[in-house]
Amino acid sequence: MRTVDLIQKKKEGKKHTKEEIYFLVEGYTRGEVEDYQMSAWLMAVCFCGLDKEETAWMTQAFVDSGEVLDFSSISSFVADKHSTGGVGDKVTIVLIPLLASLGVTCAKLSGRGLGYTGGTVDKLESIPGFNCELSKDEFMKQIKEINAAISSQSPNLTPADGKIYALRDVTATVDNKSLICASVVSKKIASGANSIVLDVKYGSGAFIKTKEEAAELAELMIETGALLGRKISAIISSMEQPLGTHIGNSLEIIESIEFLKGNYQKDLYEVTLEIAAKTLIAGGFCKTKEEAKELFDKSISSGAALETFKKIIAYQGANPDITDNYTLFKKAGNSYELKAKKDGYIENIDALKVARACKLLGAGRDKKTDNIDPAAGCILNKKSGDKVKCGETVLTLYYDDIKSEKLDEAINSADEAVEISALKPYAKELIYAL
Amino acid sequence: MRTVDLIQKKKEGKKHTKEEIYFLVEGYTRGEVEDYQMSAWLMAVCFCGLDKEETAWMTQAFVDSGEVLDFSSISSFVADKHSTGGVGDKVTIVLIPLLASLGVTCAKLSGRGLGYTGGTVDKLESIPGFNCELSKDEFMKQIKEINAAISSQSPNLTPADGKIYALRDVTATVDNKSLICASVVSKKIASGANSIVLDVKYGSGAFIKTKEEAAELAELMIETGALLGRKISAIISSMEQPLGTHIGNSLEIIESIEFLKGNYQKDLYEVTLEIAAKTLIAGGFCKTKEEAKELFDKSISSGAALETFKKIIAYQGANPDITDNYTLFKKAGNSYELKAKKDGYIENIDALKVARACKLLGAGRDKKTDNIDPAAGCILNKKSGDKVKCGETVLTLYYDDIKSEKLDEAINSADEAVEISALKPYAKELIYAL
Repeated sequence: MRTVDLIQKKKEGKKHTKEEIYFLVEGYTRGEVEDYQMSAWLMAVCFCGLDKEETAWMTQAFVDSGEVLDFSSISSFVADKHSTGGVGDKVTIVLIPLLASLGVTCAKLSGRGLGYTGGTVDKLESIPGFNCELSKDEFMKQIKEINAAISSQSPNLTPADGKIYALRDVTATVDNKSLICASVVSKKIASGANSIVLDVKYGSGAFIKTKEEAAELAELMIETGALLGRKISAIISSMEQPLGTHIGNSLEIIESIEFLKGNYQKDLYEVTLEIAAKTLIAGGFCKTKEEAKELFDKSISSGAALETFKKIIAYQGANPDITDNYTLFKKAGNSYELKAKKDGYIENIDALKVARACKLLGAGRDKKTDNIDPAAGCILNKKSGDKVKCGETVLTLYYDDIKSEKLDEAINSADEAVEISALKPYAKELIYAL
Repeated sequence: MRTVDLIQKKKEGKKHTKEEIYFLVEGYTRGEVEDYQMSAWLMAVCFCGLDKEETAWMTQAFVDSGEVLDFSSISSFVADKHSTGGVGDKVTIVLIPLLASLGVTCAKLSGRGLGYTGGTVDKLESIPGFNCELSKDEFMKQIKEINAAISSQSPNLTPADGKIYALRDVTATVDNKSLICASVVSKKIASGANSIVLDVKYGSGAFIKTKEEAAELAELMIETGALLGRKISAIISSMEQPLGTHIGNSLEIIESIEFLKGNYQKDLYEVTLEIAAKTLIAGGFCKTKEEAKELFDKSISSGAALETFKKIIAYQGANPDITDNYTLFKKAGNSYELKAKKDGYIENIDALKVARACKLLGAGRDKKTDNIDPAAGCILNKKSGDKVKCGETVLTLYYDDIKSEKLDEAINSADEAVEISALKPYAKELIYAL
């Protein structure tokens, strides 16, 4: 088998065999297939696609390239969720303690953020002392004792995906459904979960722009899971405006804590409940969505979910008192209130533009080595559909020492994000469950 | 400007600016654009194409990446020809001495062969002592004194093309019209010729399979020449069966010498005359094809063309007596006569299958570092349309010490090449002049 012949084959739109997919993935991981050959093949895939079987083989080849975690000694039902990424998306931080408090085993491996705002790991690390670099043993022990742990991804899992993802990033070959699917699903399988709920987001603040594309990707991931013997379900959710009100690392932790205390935004509640319900039903904890909602609400009203979050914080090296004392977070030195320029209703607050503002303020990074300001970000004082008066605060930016040009740029981007109309907008659809 | 954005742009089918093309070509030549980015871009080009302007910019960027030869002090009319490659294609070896004997300045840079059989340089080097590695000064001096020199390509000409061609070869991105055009035309422009005749071949033994594709490529090269101020003309010729009767390095030199002595095959004569006529008319040596044919035939019948070839051989370090004494060539130790299996007419002798047989016998190379056997090859005792009796020799293979499995494979391939039918086949079209 010669790599150049396999590139030619895909270029001609032909289907690979399982052996050919493994030859490419294994060869590349071992350094026998060259970068320039893999990138040419990836570009051919962007044009000619991979079918369902090829996608499943690629996913399995990614899994087989590294370690696979095994929780069978702890629980026969291990839950995981994955979001394709959005602005203000703190669902993981709320969902994991909540499910764990209901007895669900949650083994959550998360990433750092590249792009506009931090990832789950960045957000948790805004809690002073919080350790996301758990060893495999620490991770297993914590899950056994308190049902949940959240750790950063180990480089031993799906190393082939890691290497190929880095190449896709610099060769304009990121946006192919099959490649995205193989990358996401392989990581979830290698993390050892047997029930996986995906949150596929579309809209301004997501990398997928339309609901139709999101549905296609979700369906492909579900089918790939099925071909590889894993139960994957998915919801499709809108990311036109940020989820909840807080965007930025420590700000999102604070909103999550408030959520677990019962003070939540409707949109964040709905998305989190939908994913929780799918998980609870899959694990046999209840039968219907109504029963799931009861369990969900009770874990909040009883304080059980918050208690579990405090345990996670304590287990992972930080001070759980922070849930009652927000002064333990680093505080931003400055704030800027963006005022409404006219009376009316908030038509939309564009997720991408808010995210861009937050990044300029220091909440995100361009390169892996960039530093993040945990306190930087934005709080939405209004959300889509809210009535607003001229001069009233729509959103507030938080920041520390940044150059005045960057601040101006951030304020401009936030200003452009806000759309006010005279008529009350229709309520927008948020979730499509598959 | 970021390379990844340019890859994305081409992937979306958008047109590059001249600056973008130069950024990619110059950046790659300097090592600033990575191999894996160039290969992804090349694959995107294979799917989305380059338009005429982009192709011309790329061609010029290749020219500008290195040295450009200047013959203006020697002659105002410098002729060159280029063949896209075929089996038994010894047109250059016949044409250059013939044109030079008629007073045409011929500056010919040729390549070695990769693929099935040797290139012009490999063929000439089968003349013991023949030196194709002329310095620029030697090349210029010889052209000034005897109107012609044939040298191997200098790495100082179009280095960008050299680097990109090597990458295309291993990433299945060779077969794109614009990339082929830029590669061929840039080399011809950098070689200093101002009149260029292209022989675009199609069929079994060419890399272009259909006449229509050959016509498209020829037209693109002509237009690219026009956009860059060079007079390029082209013929399109069939490569279903080998050109002439001899295939293999020294065998093709022997057939070329015989041609210059007046003993020629009709097909080789027709292709060579067509290219010669275009050149002679472009240079004002005559006005019509009929006049060109007169000059052409006279240069052979008078012995002037052969005399010029002997001068070239002597100038380039070898013994010109070889034209009258073929024992000065290395001789193959063994031969194998392939017999007709039935009475009938030769329908076709497949060029690709004959070439494959010759390569197996040692006439071609896989890698740049492979050795070639100058004496290995094949002589066609019959050509398409010839009557044949069962048991009569159709072709003869020549070889030295090779493994018996390789010999068997070569004989099989030669055997498969020969198609005999009961009815005399229609005469096949050979040349389409553009």
